[in-house]
Amino acid sequence: MPIYRPPLRDMQFILHEVLGVSDELQALAPHAQLDQGTIDAVLEEGGKFATEVLFPLNIGGDEEGCTLDQTTHAVSTPKGFKEAYTRYVAGGWAALSCDPAYGGQGLPMVLNQCFYEMLNSANQAWTMYPGLSHGAYECLHAHGTREQKDLYLPRLTNGEWTGTMCLTESHCGTDLGLLRTRAEPRADGSYRITGEKIFISAGEHDLASNIVHLVLARLPDAPAGSKGISLFVVPKFEPRADGSLGERNAIYCAGLEHKMGIHGNATAQLVLEGASGSLVGQPHQGLAAMFVMMNAARLGVGNQSLGLTEVAYQNALVYARERIQMRSLSGAKAKDRPADPIIVHPDVRRMLLTAKAYAEGARALSLYCALLLDKERSLPDGHLRQDCADMLALLTPIVKAFTTDNGFEATTLCQQVLGGHGYIREWGMEQHVRDARINMIYEGTNTIQALDLLGRKVLGNNGATLRKFGQLLGRLAAEEGGNGKMTEFIEPVVNLGRQMTELTTDIGLRSLQNPDEMGAAAVDYLRAAGHLVFGYFFARMAQVALRKIAAGSTDPFYPAKLQTARFYFARLFPETATLIPRARAGSGVLMDTDLALA
Amino acid sequence: MPIYRPPLRDMQFILHEVLGVSDELQALAPHAQLDQGTIDAVLEEGGKFATEVLFPLNIGGDEEGCTLDQTTHAVSTPKGFKEAYTRYVAGGWAALSCDPAYGGQGLPMVLNQCFYEMLNSANQAWTMYPGLSHGAYECLHAHGTREQKDLYLPRLTNGEWTGTMCLTESHCGTDLGLLRTRAEPRADGSYRITGEKIFISAGEHDLASNIVHLVLARLPDAPAGSKGISLFVVPKFEPRADGSLGERNAIYCAGLEHKMGIHGNATAQLVLEGASGSLVGQPHQGLAAMFVMMNAARLGVGNQSLGLTEVAYQNALVYARERIQMRSLSGAKAKDRPADPIIVHPDVRRMLLTAKAYAEGARALSLYCALLLDKERSLPDGHLRQDCADMLALLTPIVKAFTTDNGFEATTLCQQVLGGHGYIREWGMEQHVRDARINMIYEGTNTIQALDLLGRKVLGNNGATLRKFGQLLGRLAAEEGGNGKMTEFIEPVVNLGRQMTELTTDIGLRSLQNPDEMGAAAVDYLRAAGHLVFGYFFARMAQVALRKIAAGSTDPFYPAKLQTARFYFARLFPETATLIPRARAGSGVLMDTDLALA
Repeated sequence: MPIYRPPLRDMQFILHEVLGVSDELQALAPHAQLDQGTIDAVLEEGGKFATEVLFPLNIGGDEEGCTLDQTTHAVSTPKGFKEAYTRYVAGGWAALSCDPAYGGQGLPMVLNQCFYEMLNSANQAWTMYPGLSHGAYECLHAHGTREQKDLYLPRLTNGEWTGTMCLTESHCGTDLGLLRTRAEPRADGSYRITGEKIFISAGEHDLASNIVHLVLARLPDAPAGSKGISLFVVPKFEPRADGSLGERNAIYCAGLEHKMGIHGNATAQLVLEGASGSLVGQPHQGLAAMFVMMNAARLGVGNQSLGLTEVAYQNALVYARERIQMRSLSGAKAKDRPADPIIVHPDVRRMLLTAKAYAEGARALSLYCALLLDKERSLPDGHLRQDCADMLALLTPIVKAFTTDNGFEATTLCQQVLGGHGYIREWGMEQHVRDARINMIYEGTNTIQALDLLGRKVLGNNGATLRKFGQLLGRLAAEEGGNGKMTEFIEPVVNLGRQMTELTTDIGLRSLQNPDEMGAAAVDYLRAAGHLVFGYFFARMAQVALRKIAAGSTDPFYPAKLQTARFYFARLFPETATLIPRARAGSGVLMDTDLALA
Repeated sequence: MPIYRPPLRDMQFILHEVLGVSDELQALAPHAQLDQGTIDAVLEEGGKFATEVLFPLNIGGDEEGCTLDQTTHAVSTPKGFKEAYTRYVAGGWAALSCDPAYGGQGLPMVLNQCFYEMLNSANQAWTMYPGLSHGAYECLHAHGTREQKDLYLPRLTNGEWTGTMCLTESHCGTDLGLLRTRAEPRADGSYRITGEKIFISAGEHDLASNIVHLVLARLPDAPAGSKGISLFVVPKFEPRADGSLGERNAIYCAGLEHKMGIHGNATAQLVLEGASGSLVGQPHQGLAAMFVMMNAARLGVGNQSLGLTEVAYQNALVYARERIQMRSLSGAKAKDRPADPIIVHPDVRRMLLTAKAYAEGARALSLYCALLLDKERSLPDGHLRQDCADMLALLTPIVKAFTTDNGFEATTLCQQVLGGHGYIREWGMEQHVRDARINMIYEGTNTIQALDLLGRKVLGNNGATLRKFGQLLGRLAAEEGGNGKMTEFIEPVVNLGRQMTELTTDIGLRSLQNPDEMGAAAVDYLRAAGHLVFGYFFARMAQVALRKIAAGSTDPFYPAKLQTARFYFARLFPETATLIPRARAGSGVLMDTDLALA
């Protein structure tokens, strides 16, 4: 039977020892009263919910999937999902990081991010229901009218209703400028919306009494392309002013996709047949409004793969310690048994350590970003808020793409540790691989993330934000310059930083002549940037561990952190030796080929 | 709807233009009469069978899977599988490369390998049924008694019966020395076999009237471990001397595994309740006999991933040419349409070209190995036969592991080209990824392949066979030394050869002190060796293309081959810059960590 243990100690290490979140948060007015004890208590309770309520539903949810009743357009989620959602709502979890003005608990995003990591480890498919609600909440909170906020936010906050993002149509996903769903104004100020949407996660289900759809559509006078898209809120049931449910709106589930994974989440085809909606934000500014939600969602997707990497690692580790097969090459280790546990084999350890290092690097980066989000929202100084926003904008595509590519590799390696048993359902490992695969695709494919990073976030401001990240690295190097024990962790990152600077200039110059040079380099560039960032965080984790050891700690946790960092620099970071020349290889070798089917 | 077009031109390029198989085969007595026209005609007909009969059953087979009737122990294969098998038998395909002494057509393995590539592209799950039969055929042909051969080979050759390999038990896969199934001799010279086997591909089904199981078990006097394993043939129905079916034997299917992919193939749990069997080969020598079959099977597994890479590539290419989304970064290319086909984007081309290059490299290597197999069997000179056997032994783990790792990466990239559409079933792409995943696991995990390569095939003979491969490379370099146009293709491979020589010596020396050094390096070493071999074949393909162009050919096929080779050296081969330092990183960083669950 698969296991899952919330990695509380690892989370606390990043939160309290590496990032010092208590101090950081106390400088923010909304969190001035929050102390470490409260954070830890919330994490512990959150871990229980994930482990006891969600995790037992994961394999069954995958096997059963969702079902659509074609007559009533109703969707049933797998057995137990509704009850788990009821407990989630009753426990107040939906409100964790929501605004107290609408009934929220006002806790910081950095804590919410830890909570969601655990939910994702336990059951990504289930977690997408509240995850999308939270996205809809954020979007309405930022762009809704007073009336929309008063009507929708309290019920998204308490979890009574859930939300969705309705962007994709069958002919357009990445290129939303092509979308065709149309919205016609009515005399009462509302809109009549008609069209078809696909790939709508959590698009229809039986968990909550109402679903708040955020729908992109075109007004009659809209300019062509992405500058003519407006955002509408389209509730499944039209709420009366008091929040009670009124008429069923003309937005229906016409089909569910049969997917590779995340079977427990309903991926709906939605048909809008003159559904009633109200405008969110300004006309033709819908894409910008939706992007508020998408940036947070991209951090959320990285967090999904972090969760899957962690749970896959834990189960592969248990298997590797229990499964006996062959003898160690360096002599029998379990002499009283007919064979050694497979964890004695160096390559099994390589696979396990890869997952472990990717999880620990991703967690540090993920929580650093969530803290930036809290600071961007609540720091008193506007310049500092902008600094946080810029850094977050730089790091968001790295979190999304690097963590999800790594997550797919890590879950695949964990599956490999189990051999044939990894390929069959009962161990749960093949499900993690299938679930992890979607994270590289949705919320902007990883290629789109790479173009966003290199084209917009780096070259778009001539590398200014990237240099700010370089300053963090410079500060660490200056701080630890006299500490020989830190050299092995800092030197490679500083060298990579130098190479990245040259590479950026080189691609920037070539792209001025031919923008395809940027497109040809972007994916490798993003991975190299990912290692720059991970390398920095592994160095910071090593710094903390070395200090604790120097201060006399005998907790084996700290030497283990050093060993993971050493493994990372010895076996994963050297990928950069390939990425840099590949990113420099130019577009010619891609574009000059006539790719015709023979 | 997914498409598949047999890559006949690509196969002919390797067979006739790169490898010159007609000349090579005519030097072998059994194939002296075989000409290019016959080879091409067989390929064309084989391609039709794959495309018209098997391919339409692939998605349905995945959706429906196999079902077991617990009462009768009978297994039903998906709709259409049985009819397809009947057509396969009627077409004489089962007999293609079998011995004419038993009714075979006696065609070479190199042709069979092409045929199987197409079957695997069309339907890997179905193809495993005849694939395993062919393995059983080879094993009995090499090790069976005269009586066993006369009884079983004609019916495996004509496809009337199918075969299996029964190795794995629940507590042992890699470590067959632990197996517990026991065989007790009976007075009539037969054996009574009792035990439980798992993961038996094609282990029970409704395609053929009888199943010939080859079962590993222990005799009562067997020494412990892998030197006490014997091989038995255990038919589902005990045949009478005339080949008619007698009594139902006590070997039953007790369950089917629920797997990530290859759903159309029945992966059976088999229970032997005193089943009647006869010994194949010598007592306690069963593992060696089974290895004859496993080596061929490992080439077959590489070929499965080649097939999946090819079909995934073709479909991703079709999609990339048809799907319009966004504009080219270097200016609109399809100005009359609302967006450009996504094939204009450099990163989409990178993904497509990765799959294309991996397919073309794998095909060259796969057919080179199959030709070695033909030569090993039929060359008149014993020394030359041994040379072929040695080279094949060196290359087999590379074919198995490098091709299957690449195949998983390639199918995953092709899925990525389709974005969200790649994650849902209807396009067939996610199935290719799921199917491709097993190839890295079965027939010896890819870690086992790496240990076999580095430990046994390279260090085991002090690099003698690897040096022979180096001589092929040296010959090519000498041949083309004066040709500046070949420098870009030869120089990187020669450099890598030099690095591999140093690396091999280094690991060899360190392993003398600590064998875990070999285990820590093996997987990266195998991938580096894979690039050495692929690099060599891309250079040979480029050589042929350059010669054809120099001779005045205007066929766009040849410049396209040059471009694929250039892409390979620019974007895939540089992986070696990471692999070499990783392989040198040593075992300490893996072994010194205490991998405890926090």
